[in-house]
Amino acid sequence: MKHFTHIADLGVPGVQSVLDQALHWKRYAPGAHLAGKLLGMVFFNPSLRTRASFEAAMLRGGGNALVLDVGNGVWKLEDRTGAIMDGDRPEHIKEAIPVLGRYADALAVRTFGALLDDDADAADPVLNAFRALAGVPVISMESAREHPCQGLADMLTLRENFEDTHRLPVTLTWAPHIKPLPKAVPHSFLLSAAAAGCEVRVTHPPGFELHPGVLAEAQDYARESGGSVTVTHDRKAALAGSRAVYAKAWGPDTHQVSAADAPARIAAHEDWLVDAAVLAAAQDPVFLHCLPVRRNVEVADAVLDGKASRVIDEAENRFHVQRVLLHRLLNPDA
Amino acid sequence: MKHFTHIADLGVPGVQSVLDQALHWKRYAPGAHLAGKLLGMVFFNPSLRTRASFEAAMLRGGGNALVLDVGNGVWKLEDRTGAIMDGDRPEHIKEAIPVLGRYADALAVRTFGALLDDDADAADPVLNAFRALAGVPVISMESAREHPCQGLADMLTLRENFEDTHRLPVTLTWAPHIKPLPKAVPHSFLLSAAAAGCEVRVTHPPGFELHPGVLAEAQDYARESGGSVTVTHDRKAALAGSRAVYAKAWGPDTHQVSAADAPARIAAHEDWLVDAAVLAAAQDPVFLHCLPVRRNVEVADAVLDGKASRVIDEAENRFHVQRVLLHRLLNPDA
Amino acid sequence: MKHFTHIADLGVPGVQSVLDQALHWKRYAPGAHLAGKLLGMVFFNPSLRTRASFEAAMLRGGGNALVLDVGNGVWKLEDRTGAIMDGDRPEHIKEAIPVLGRYADALAVRTFGALLDDDADAADPVLNAFRALAGVPVISMESAREHPCQGLADMLTLRENFEDTHRLPVTLTWAPHIKPLPKAVPHSFLLSAAAAGCEVRVTHPPGFELHPGVLAEAQDYARESGGSVTVTHDRKAALAGSRAVYAKAWGPDTHQVSAADAPARIAAHEDWLVDAAVLAAAQDPVFLHCLPVRRNVEVADAVLDGKASRVIDEAENRFHVQRVLLHRLLNPDA
Repeated sequence: MKHFTHIADLGVPGVQSVLDQALHWKRYAPGAHLAGKLLGMVFFNPSLRTRASFEAAMLRGGGNALVLDVGNGVWKLEDRTGAIMDGDRPEHIKEAIPVLGRYADALAVRTFGALLDDDADAADPVLNAFRALAGVPVISMESAREHPCQGLADMLTLRENFEDTHRLPVTLTWAPHIKPLPKAVPHSFLLSAAAAGCEVRVTHPPGFELHPGVLAEAQDYARESGGSVTVTHDRKAALAGSRAVYAKAWGPDTHQVSAADAPARIAAHEDWLVDAAVLAAAQDPVFLHCLPVRRNVEVADAVLDGKASRVIDEAENRFHVQRVLLHRLLNPDA
Repeated sequence: MKHFTHIADLGVPGVQSVLDQALHWKRYAPGAHLAGKLLGMVFFNPSLRTRASFEAAMLRGGGNALVLDVGNGVWKLEDRTGAIMDGDRPEHIKEAIPVLGRYADALAVRTFGALLDDDADAADPVLNAFRALAGVPVISMESAREHPCQGLADMLTLRENFEDTHRLPVTLTWAPHIKPLPKAVPHSFLLSAAAAGCEVRVTHPPGFELHPGVLAEAQDYARESGGSVTVTHDRKAALAGSRAVYAKAWGPDTHQVSAADAPARIAAHEDWLVDAAVLAAAQDPVFLHCLPVRRNVEVADAVLDGKASRVIDEAENRFHVQRVLLHRLLNPDA
Repeated sequence: MKHFTHIADLGVPGVQSVLDQALHWKRYAPGAHLAGKLLGMVFFNPSLRTRASFEAAMLRGGGNALVLDVGNGVWKLEDRTGAIMDGDRPEHIKEAIPVLGRYADALAVRTFGALLDDDADAADPVLNAFRALAGVPVISMESAREHPCQGLADMLTLRENFEDTHRLPVTLTWAPHIKPLPKAVPHSFLLSAAAAGCEVRVTHPPGFELHPGVLAEAQDYARESGGSVTVTHDRKAALAGSRAVYAKAWGPDTHQVSAADAPARIAAHEDWLVDAAVLAAAQDPVFLHCLPVRRNVEVADAVLDGKASRVIDEAENRFHVQRVLLHRLLNPDA
């Protein structure tokens, strides 16, 4: 594995192997396995867990991290090929990426999509420029298409609660929000759960379809892992028998709904709020959410503060999976 | 001591003990006493000394620190219980605090008060949420009620200049400003000086009373330490015989003066500027201020640049007291 | 060498010596030569390479760095002597600098000029306040007058490509931009190249003269090193025989052109874009630029993406020269 930016970099056996090692290292910490290593962290978008958990993983492993906020103390970056750069972005990623690759042993990048064209976002242009130009391993801290470290942390949480995720019924349910959000997190839960062999049910209102390329990829993983993927607009049907409920807001399918119409389409589904009744429709489930979560807009207080919630464990597990991934990228011969 | 967020966490003997150790370690540095420890630093407000001195204390002790600026690269945080989170704050402290507590060995937090209700500020809701939810030790980098590391650094500076602070006459004088400032720093000087046995004189214009709960707490410490606390509007009387002059701007008592009237009430007392004549009314005093200071608004150039000023030593002493406190919180069995 | 803020702190033999050591350490890394050392980095202006390369130099040497962004999480700083501080800058550098000097073993500072008066900028008031007040070694991360670490990185790049820089013909050519930029980078290339013995040709449109004090200093270095410095408005003549082309945008000479007229004066010279024809007018040259570069405004894509470009190596070399300079400042007896 040269880079880790998509679940495809691991594949089904790789997902299994990372989770096994993360569970082991959560019990028996690995010591200074990253000594002398320097991670360059490049943020095009805000963060809390991602920033803290990546930096903690490097520091606790005996390494170090540089944190760079694009446009905030650091020059804004242009990414369009051939641009006449006479606007507010004084530096191009064609320079910035290889330069940072000269200072650091690996680069971590967060770069959200523009949310105007699902196909453009799924093609992940900025993330792929990092892969092409960094000269060192690249790890995703969420890009337009996926947030793969989140997906693996989700699976680690399921493994901790259910030991075996093979044929485990889990529901990813759409949730309301005040604005369209990226699809990277639902994509990654879907891909990771399919790779982990879960019986994945995706449920959302009409017009909020996930990207067809990601759905097809998840079907491939399910075939290989012995899991399954189904999609339905009938939330109740999806929840029946589910042992885990994963709530997440995301924006409409851009093939069906224009950016101008998106807010109204989202607002029409306020009743998709995930509350205690939703959990009751599943089978003694655990509750997951990647955070940040808008309380009482996406998810009710009673769910987040209730006994089913595993959201804090899930956030902690970001640290544990990332420690394994950073180890594999930075010590390829270990 | 599980947390250190208020002078009450130390009490009179604890204040003495921290100062003794800080003086000792200022001469004989403790080496890598924080090796393997990671401090999560959460700023809701700006900083210079606090950020640099806490980070320096962790790094020089062989540990590490994560610095997170809320709302600046990090999601803005909601703190109201039961809020419907449809505004500009996408994450709640109910999630953010315990998550950060999973990544770090201790959390440091800076959270100023809203300055609208002195009682609400003295109750310190955000700081107390950190204590309740972090799952790891919490240390204050200034909250609505107190700035206790500043108070201890102030006392360390007095100890260096006068050896013994028992019955030392010291004056805390109000100073003008362009706007209402929090009362945390004057509260902490008052509490720390009372705990250190000083003869504390507080002087300010009418309507600028400190919080009655803090005053009562300071009286309790003075009784235990053999010190005293008096409050007067007569600055000249307060200064007579004082060996230290501590200047600080703070806003009006919200029980007496509305937020709308506060600027005019402050502007009416421009003559409280601390200049050479003020120092001359004391008895060969040292001059203290927590910094930042607005030159020629709060304090005249002649005072800050004069031989009585100890403000740089005082800032350095932040490092020395914090190193001791971090040691006690992070190595409870040492 | 107590501080390193200007090429004058090294002089001609010092420039040679730093480059020799940087070349050696680029091949044989020095290990934990900065163990236990803490660098305080103070930014009044944005950065990418400078921030990352200085922090990397400290961390890879076993030391640590504090990064402080003035006005961004850190109080804004006043620098005017005698100011009545009733504006938006709550802290004076008279306090901030010595305080930071108490926490760190050295201070690095970036402080651009105001671009209103070339003589005021060449006098470097903020940088010189750091030298006077820090109490610890100061290193420049670019100030109003010079960007000396950039100049040394430029020379290291020439040394790598040509082995010997003595009498090497190099052209510094002005380039267009969307606004006036500081002269620190062209000043530092000029001074460094003169000290390294190059045959330096400076070319720019009329009205864009570099500072006469810097030109005179460069002539002095050229006399000592055996190099030369010439200035011409005839770019073609400058380029003839040049083995290196250094492109850089800078603002007009403030003695000749007012700030109001500057944008129009710059816009009148769009034809100074550095494109493939410019390189073809030199003699199989390498191409240098300090970055960030506005593609197709300053320099054409074909140049930056072409085989002559050394801009990524040049940026990497920032790390190598800074590592040597930090070593000399922080280990003066080594």
